[in-house]
Amino acid sequence: MTKQVSIPTLRRLPSYYNIICDAEACGDKFISSATIAKLLLIDDTQVRKDIAATGYVGKPKVGFDIVEFKSHLEEFLGLKNTRMAFLVGAGNLGIALSKYMGFKRYGLEILALFDNDPLKQGIKVENKEVFPVSQLPVLAKEMDVQMAILTVPYNQAQNVTDFIVEAGIKAIWNFTTVNLKVPDDVLVQSQDLASSFVTFSLMFTEMQKNI
Amino acid sequence: MTKQVSIPTLRRLPSYYNIICDAEACGDKFISSATIAKLLLIDDTQVRKDIAATGYVGKPKVGFDIVEFKSHLEEFLGLKNTRMAFLVGAGNLGIALSKYMGFKRYGLEILALFDNDPLKQGIKVENKEVFPVSQLPVLAKEMDVQMAILTVPYNQAQNVTDFIVEAGIKAIWNFTTVNLKVPDDVLVQSQDLASSFVTFSLMFTEMQKNI
Repeated sequence: MTKQVSIPTLRRLPSYYNIICDAEACGDKFISSATIAKLLLIDDTQVRKDIAATGYVGKPKVGFDIVEFKSHLEEFLGLKNTRMAFLVGAGNLGIALSKYMGFKRYGLEILALFDNDPLKQGIKVENKEVFPVSQLPVLAKEMDVQMAILTVPYNQAQNVTDFIVEAGIKAIWNFTTVNLKVPDDVLVQSQDLASSFVTFSLMFTEMQKNI
Repeated sequence: MTKQVSIPTLRRLPSYYNIICDAEACGDKFISSATIAKLLLIDDTQVRKDIAATGYVGKPKVGFDIVEFKSHLEEFLGLKNTRMAFLVGAGNLGIALSKYMGFKRYGLEILALFDNDPLKQGIKVENKEVFPVSQLPVLAKEMDVQMAILTVPYNQAQNVTDFIVEAGIKAIWNFTTVNLKVPDDVLVQSQDLASSFVTFSLMFTEMQKNI
C-alpha cells in the first residue's frame, strides 16, 4: 500500500475483488465501474474514486481489463502474500472459523490450532492439528508465524496474549470480549461478535420503541 | 435502554456480564469495580463510569451485589428478551455461526436456516432445519421472527435482502461484503469478516514496513 486510502474505501475493495473474480469466471474480459456500482448498488462515482485511490486506471469506454485489474487489486490488498496464522482456542467459534474457507481468497491460511484442553489436543480440524498452547513458541519459530486468531474464553484472553506475544506473535485478530493489552509493536484487531450482537440488539430495541 | 450510553461503554458491558456470571458460578455474593477492572486490565474509574451509565449503583465498601447487578445488566442489555432470528445462507460461515453457542448467553436464538440449494434443504444443523428461502415469509409470520443473520454469497445478498425485508424482517446482521440497501425502518449491522481481515492484514503490512 504505497498510497494512503481511507478505511471505507479499503472495506469496499474486497467486494470489487469478489465481483471481478466472478466476471473472470464468466469469461468476461472487461468490466466497467458502472457494472460494479450496479451490482453493489452504490454510486458509480464512488467506485471510480475507490479504484483510482488504488492507483489503477481503466481504459476509456471499455472499462477495466479484468486480468490486469484483478492482479493489481491482489497486489494492492496483499492477497498474493499468504498470511500464515495460528488459531488459539479451539472452542465452538475457533473451530467454526478454522472450517470457514472464505478467508482463503483473502490470503489467510490457518496452519494450526492451539488449545489447553488435553481432550482437544491431537484432533484435526480440516487437516489442521490442535496442539497444546505451550508448543506455540516453538512452532511459531519453526513455521515463521507472526499472526494469531484469538478465540479463547475471556478469562484466559490476556494471559494467553501475554504468552503468544512473548513467543513472537505480532498481530492478533481478537474475537474475545477483552480489550487486550499489548506492546506498541503488536497489532490487535478486535472482532467481538457477542458485543457486536448486543449493540445491534439494543439498537433494534430502540428502533422499535420509536415506531 | 432508557439512558443513552456510548458505544464504547456498550461494547464493554458484555465483558462485565461475563465476569459476574463467572463470579456467581464461583459462589461469590459481591464484586468490586476494582476486581472487574483488574480482570479486564482496564481502569477502575472506567468500570465505575460504565456501570453508573447503566443506572446501577453499588454499595460503598462492598461493591456490587452480584445477583442484583446481573439481573440489572440482563435487563439493560435486553438479554432476558430472547431475540429469535433466522439464518439465511447455510454455507460454511452460516453453519459455523449456527453451531456457535456463544450467542445464546446474549439472548440470540437461531430458530431455522434458509438456503436455496436443494441439497441443503431438510438437513439439520444443531436441531435447526434448513428450509428453502421461499418458505421464509410464511415461517417468519408463524414464528414472529423479525431478525435475520445474512450469510449468503455477495452476489445474492441484495436480492435475498429485498425478499426477506418484503417478508417483514426488520433487522439484518449482515456478514456479507455488500452494503445493503434497505428501507429506513430496517436496521442493518455489518459484520464483514473478510473485509475486516483484509484491513487488518494491510495494517500489519504497513506496520512491518515501519519497523
